[in-house]
Amino acid sequence: MLRAIEHKKGAVLILDQSRLPHSITDIKCTSWRQVSRCIKELKIRGAPAIGIAAAMGYALGAEEINAKDTGTLIEKLAPVFEGLFESRPTAVNLGWALQRMMEKARLLAGEGRTVRQIKDALWREAGLIHKEDIRINKAIGVWGSQFIKDGDVILTHCNAGALATGGYGTATAPIFLAHKQGKRIHVIVDETRPVLQGARLTALEMREAGIPMTLITDNSAGALLQQRRINLAIVGTDRTTRNGDVANKIGTYSVAVLCKENKVPFYVAAPLSSIDFSMRSGGLIPIEQRHENEVFFVRGRRIAPTGIRAANLAFDVTPARYVTAIITEVGAFRPNQLKKIASGKGAGLDAVRYVP
Amino acid sequence: MLRAIEHKKGAVLILDQSRLPHSITDIKCTSWRQVSRCIKELKIRGAPAIGIAAAMGYALGAEEINAKDTGTLIEKLAPVFEGLFESRPTAVNLGWALQRMMEKARLLAGEGRTVRQIKDALWREAGLIHKEDIRINKAIGVWGSQFIKDGDVILTHCNAGALATGGYGTATAPIFLAHKQGKRIHVIVDETRPVLQGARLTALEMREAGIPMTLITDNSAGALLQQRRINLAIVGTDRTTRNGDVANKIGTYSVAVLCKENKVPFYVAAPLSSIDFSMRSGGLIPIEQRHENEVFFVRGRRIAPTGIRAANLAFDVTPARYVTAIITEVGAFRPNQLKKIASGKGAGLDAVRYVP
Repeated sequence: MLRAIEHKKGAVLILDQSRLPHSITDIKCTSWRQVSRCIKELKIRGAPAIGIAAAMGYALGAEEINAKDTGTLIEKLAPVFEGLFESRPTAVNLGWALQRMMEKARLLAGEGRTVRQIKDALWREAGLIHKEDIRINKAIGVWGSQFIKDGDVILTHCNAGALATGGYGTATAPIFLAHKQGKRIHVIVDETRPVLQGARLTALEMREAGIPMTLITDNSAGALLQQRRINLAIVGTDRTTRNGDVANKIGTYSVAVLCKENKVPFYVAAPLSSIDFSMRSGGLIPIEQRHENEVFFVRGRRIAPTGIRAANLAFDVTPARYVTAIITEVGAFRPNQLKKIASGKGAGLDAVRYVP
Repeated sequence: MLRAIEHKKGAVLILDQSRLPHSITDIKCTSWRQVSRCIKELKIRGAPAIGIAAAMGYALGAEEINAKDTGTLIEKLAPVFEGLFESRPTAVNLGWALQRMMEKARLLAGEGRTVRQIKDALWREAGLIHKEDIRINKAIGVWGSQFIKDGDVILTHCNAGALATGGYGTATAPIFLAHKQGKRIHVIVDETRPVLQGARLTALEMREAGIPMTLITDNSAGALLQQRRINLAIVGTDRTTRNGDVANKIGTYSVAVLCKENKVPFYVAAPLSSIDFSMRSGGLIPIEQRHENEVFFVRGRRIAPTGIRAANLAFDVTPARYVTAIITEVGAFRPNQLKKIASGKGAGLDAVRYVP
């Protein structure tokens, strides 16, 4: 399985996903600014993966700081936090991972550790976030695969696969597990314009895993749903709010509406780190608008006349009422149940585990 | 305004739309088989335009026939009819135009005209179909522009513009007229994967007409509708059945569902020639499946890994219940009113003209 990111000998290796599937090339980052640029330019993307990248970028940033004492280190880490935080606005994992890294640094400084000890601990913490992410995804797979029956045809949008995460994927975890369990499944992959994460990344992951799949243009999903050729949809999320509203790649809202119209269940795979319990509803999520050149150009070739404008919303928000269940690492929940785990994640979760 | 097709000195000039907007080149067809190939390969597309192309192809086919008597001419025209008819399956205009041409030839043969006279008359008939189409489109503009208010933002999908017709367009006719009337409008253009008729053709037509527009990826329309940034949608149709079901470019069904979900009116511009009064409902319309390479390649560059499959449905069917009104050259109708004009098109139409 392709891996999106790796810490190796003091550098952060980021697989350049903008060149997939045509070329498999790592970018070796030796500064936090390089990591930030990789996030901005979609060399690495996917909410969990950019959380991990931010964590590793933060550790790299600490390494770059020449500090005689821990006070200076903490102080000089502030612009690293800010710089990485501003790389992209929508995914909550980015802020979540940076927050966790910053708290770790402050805790250790408070405990009187040395600068070197803190720097080492930050690398370990980033590695931990990475490892946890894979474990979380496997748990999402267990909870999610219960919704997949033998013979099911599954629609997915964008890439919430191994490449979008530390490994294994969020939306793809139930798919991989169902396949491993011997269920005969077929995956319909939305190409996901403008950046084509579905065509370039999800299709590649499905092919590598040997899972039968069909690539479609985004505007074909509706017709297939209408024709009863899709049994369920699973997507990832960049930020889900307390009330169960789901921000995800542009086009997700359309898929959800079309699923509801055709009475097809619509699932969202969401590690708890992607749920923003501090945010009341989806209308508050900052939605990134990216450059119109992503619309105008495909693989460097212009597809539209010059002298016109384009809009390029990177994400949309699917209201909770369209979501059948949100699949986390601790259970699958109806969107309105999320509130119950808002305070003290993990407490009393058995009570709200979703039974389909 | 760009013109899709023209008869000039015994040849049929077809603007190669597959090369737009990058290059404006005519293909000079001197045989009906060339015309058929142009239709198949989307050099010319759009239901009304391929009707005109088929009519001109038929006249060209007649010209190619070496017949001593009119009986031989009529007999040898049968494979021309068949060959052109099979170029594409979904648009009803193709069969409609060929039927009209064939009837003309038979009528004149029955009246004892010479081979030469029939050949000349077929060119005139094709020219008449072309001229009528432009007149029809202008009438659609008059009926349709009543639905466009000053300040409206209008969504359109694919290209039902001048290039899809003899000139002026179907879905674009109300837009052009509203703009001419001084209404301040803005058009949102779906790029329309896989062949990108929106990005390549509609965007070009809007730019040429000086109508403010924004290009979007197909999967962005839902978010804009949800955000109340679109006031109405207008699309064309390749075949509308008696009950008001609308076959049109893949993705139209999704637009219609998303409009309904967000209470935005959804209009279909349909010359009577695109309404198949002989067909009961949309489920019976033959839907063309095109080659998967249209999905895999954009302007000659592959966007997906090798070793995978793609589905490429060229059209979908929007059930009548999603359609606010069908705008024809003789009035705008609620879909369930179409039945009333099924027999004797034009009779008693005043009674069913749509008042919004």
